[in-house]
Amino acid sequence: MPTSAEIAHLVGGELHGTKDKLIKSLRVIDQSDGNSVTFISDKKFIPALSSCKAGVLLVNEALLSGYSGDYILVEDPYLAFAKVSVLFDPEPRGTLGVHRTAVIEDFVTMGANVSVGANAVIGKGVVLEDGCTIGSNVTIGDQCHIGEDSIIYSGVTLYHQVHMGKNCRIHAGTVLGSHGFGYANSQGEWHKISQIGRVIIGDDVEIGANCAIDRGAIEDTVIEDGVKIDNLVHIAHNVVIGAHSALAGQIGVSGSTHIGHHTMAGGQAGFAGHIKTAPGSVFTGQAMITGNVEKPGVYSSGIGYMPSKDWRKMVARLRRLDELSKKIKALEEISKNGSE
Amino acid sequence: MPTSAEIAHLVGGELHGTKDKLIKSLRVIDQSDGNSVTFISDKKFIPALSSCKAGVLLVNEALLSGYSGDYILVEDPYLAFAKVSVLFDPEPRGTLGVHRTAVIEDFVTMGANVSVGANAVIGKGVVLEDGCTIGSNVTIGDQCHIGEDSIIYSGVTLYHQVHMGKNCRIHAGTVLGSHGFGYANSQGEWHKISQIGRVIIGDDVEIGANCAIDRGAIEDTVIEDGVKIDNLVHIAHNVVIGAHSALAGQIGVSGSTHIGHHTMAGGQAGFAGHIKTAPGSVFTGQAMITGNVEKPGVYSSGIGYMPSKDWRKMVARLRRLDELSKKIKALEEISKNGSE
Amino acid sequence: MPTSAEIAHLVGGELHGTKDKLIKSLRVIDQSDGNSVTFISDKKFIPALSSCKAGVLLVNEALLSGYSGDYILVEDPYLAFAKVSVLFDPEPRGTLGVHRTAVIEDFVTMGANVSVGANAVIGKGVVLEDGCTIGSNVTIGDQCHIGEDSIIYSGVTLYHQVHMGKNCRIHAGTVLGSHGFGYANSQGEWHKISQIGRVIIGDDVEIGANCAIDRGAIEDTVIEDGVKIDNLVHIAHNVVIGAHSALAGQIGVSGSTHIGHHTMAGGQAGFAGHIKTAPGSVFTGQAMITGNVEKPGVYSSGIGYMPSKDWRKMVARLRRLDELSKKIKALEEISKNGSE
Repeated sequence: MPTSAEIAHLVGGELHGTKDKLIKSLRVIDQSDGNSVTFISDKKFIPALSSCKAGVLLVNEALLSGYSGDYILVEDPYLAFAKVSVLFDPEPRGTLGVHRTAVIEDFVTMGANVSVGANAVIGKGVVLEDGCTIGSNVTIGDQCHIGEDSIIYSGVTLYHQVHMGKNCRIHAGTVLGSHGFGYANSQGEWHKISQIGRVIIGDDVEIGANCAIDRGAIEDTVIEDGVKIDNLVHIAHNVVIGAHSALAGQIGVSGSTHIGHHTMAGGQAGFAGHIKTAPGSVFTGQAMITGNVEKPGVYSSGIGYMPSKDWRKMVARLRRLDELSKKIKALEEISKNGSE
Repeated sequence: MPTSAEIAHLVGGELHGTKDKLIKSLRVIDQSDGNSVTFISDKKFIPALSSCKAGVLLVNEALLSGYSGDYILVEDPYLAFAKVSVLFDPEPRGTLGVHRTAVIEDFVTMGANVSVGANAVIGKGVVLEDGCTIGSNVTIGDQCHIGEDSIIYSGVTLYHQVHMGKNCRIHAGTVLGSHGFGYANSQGEWHKISQIGRVIIGDDVEIGANCAIDRGAIEDTVIEDGVKIDNLVHIAHNVVIGAHSALAGQIGVSGSTHIGHHTMAGGQAGFAGHIKTAPGSVFTGQAMITGNVEKPGVYSSGIGYMPSKDWRKMVARLRRLDELSKKIKALEEISKNGSE
Repeated sequence: MPTSAEIAHLVGGELHGTKDKLIKSLRVIDQSDGNSVTFISDKKFIPALSSCKAGVLLVNEALLSGYSGDYILVEDPYLAFAKVSVLFDPEPRGTLGVHRTAVIEDFVTMGANVSVGANAVIGKGVVLEDGCTIGSNVTIGDQCHIGEDSIIYSGVTLYHQVHMGKNCRIHAGTVLGSHGFGYANSQGEWHKISQIGRVIIGDDVEIGANCAIDRGAIEDTVIEDGVKIDNLVHIAHNVVIGAHSALAGQIGVSGSTHIGHHTMAGGQAGFAGHIKTAPGSVFTGQAMITGNVEKPGVYSSGIGYMPSKDWRKMVARLRRLDELSKKIKALEEISKNGSE
């Protein structure tokens, strides 16, 4: 258990209060107690501070607002919270070594401090670098390469030749390297195009649960360094996701699209195929990105919910927008003629 | 094989016809035969009754309409159908006991009549209450608790500390307790926030195939009693799904959102983060719920399909709605000036 | 390694150039070298041909445009590319035979040249026809039938009684035969309807990663011959997908809907329940198909992305469309009265 002083040191902050207070948990403000650390990162929570019972608070000058308890002054309390959260994570680490039920095929190279879970299957020629953790019931296809300290959770499948950098996390049920959706149509029937490219994943990438990232058709599908992907996201073949982008849940990116670096996209957004989007762009939830995005900016689509009765009326009007437009034109004609 | 009288007893209905007819199958009206039970729950099927050959029909007064075959009179034929369907379910039950290939870690507590399938992995300190069925290739993380008579199908992953009530069903490939999508951004890079909350699931919850339900960041993600969730649904961290709600396929619920009890939502609907929706609300398919819903009601979004040619015109007009509006304003000015 | 003449023979084309050139790879035009085959199937790539260094080019008359290197003349270069791609696929084949860790239950029938991967679980009474490949960590439920030469990738779950034709591919993590979302509501609570139908899959069907296809409630869910389904697609109970249709990523098809044969649908499209769509129809991405589609054609929904500032204005106007419409009516009245 860390002391308040140790937490201040971890986050590079200035402790105001008792140094040797033992901190046993991380809590939100209104559930904090004398043995917990909490944080404030938005002024909307300032009123809650009056009843805050935390052992120590992570806060910056702007949000301090006369707080009377112990606190640690930092520049970015949310970032400090991120750093502190690691101390209180109850997640068990994989047991070092290869579980007796795991299947390790020939020519596997394993670094130091590797953990391979129960019933995992490691294919021919796979490289697991130092510190990798492979969960139970995982399948790693032939010739995959998993970088240092990467974690692959239970039930993940990697097809052959997936290359992953260091410090990645792939959450349960995700599939990397499945076949891209490529067919040639001949006389009404679909002829499969073998997908001979790979999936290349950079360093510090995190991919959520039950995603599907297809291998390239000829060239590779690429997820660059620092990209964060939420659950149930679909990345088609030949896509490039630029570095440090964040894609929320259930996003779909169609084939051969390039998403610029530092992009942020909201849940259920859909990107058409063969487009490019400018670095640093933001797309709100359910956005329908049907073409190139030349300039970085914030982009949206869709019409928020309304009572179904009003919605039905609006849709009916929408379907008659053409008619409405013609009426206006007619009125303009009349008005013009009238004034002549 | 039940008799018609036994079926009448099961559904609490009144049998009109032969008591000892053996019923071998449950069929839809137009495929029924003399050894099958069928049902009618909508007046649109009344014409089909004239050629119905069922051994016995589940029906209420309102739909009976002079039916000449054997029938069982009930209040709610659809509910009666639900009860009868259980008799004809060919789904095999798990074999009692622990399969020889399953991996059971230390300190696991197992009730009576538990079934653990082939290659399942049960983590440290897990509690499996009486009558639980765990499928093959399942991973149950450390310190999970599975309530009485719950069924977990093949390929499911539970991370650590998931707590599930009794009579739940979790369908194949679903992931419970994966990390919420939480990062602090510092100088363009994402710093992971450890997700230290849990997933808490009530009694009588059913969750479809290949869903992903994230654990809470600090507090817990909660699925209350009686909730039914369809396939490929994404539930983000800290979400609460109120009791007896039904969420259709591919719905996404963003972080910290609270869905009121007895909510019904259609396929592909998306809920923004940090919102609350009133109990008893209904959201139609693809609805885009971007804010709080204060009053229960039926809410919708989106514009249904139309021929692409018309759609392109409509969208073009929509993008010029501002222009249209200005034209009207100008016409109003002229009209006002003209009448002065 | 094939020669250029062998490739010409495979695609039924006419080789212009050296016959015995060894072809070692398949590349896109601008990355081709003297030992690679490439192809052109769209006139937008004609400029790239001037710097093409390929050993041999797959091309038709229309696109040849004075190309000076070796080439193979075919009718459909994209189809020829599909055929050639198979030669350069690095995907490892499953090792013949049953892996020592696989679990084979009683009464399993296995044809010749079957491969069953590590930790796969094959249920009672399953039939695996000649040439089937079952990946690692797969679960095949009791009484399933897998047709000749079908491939089931890692981590797939088939519930009981799924019937699959020949030459199918089911990608990793996909679930076939999970329970349809069927409940009868009684006094605000949901009562489960046992799903006693099956999933029937034709020949030459390919289904992407992490899809979920539910079994029928009473009748069967049917995927007809030649259907191609991308990743993360949800098919509800009793649905019929007509032959040779192609459904892109994250599509959802609600219960009892019949999609006509030779349909093409874009990513994230959603089909309502209990509808029928005409054969040969095309639906663009995110289309919202809320009703029957009587005539084949191209159908769309949704409004593409725009800068959020403009979008907010447009949505505000949309919500006042009713008001706008009334203003026009008023102006028309004035205009009519004025001209009287």
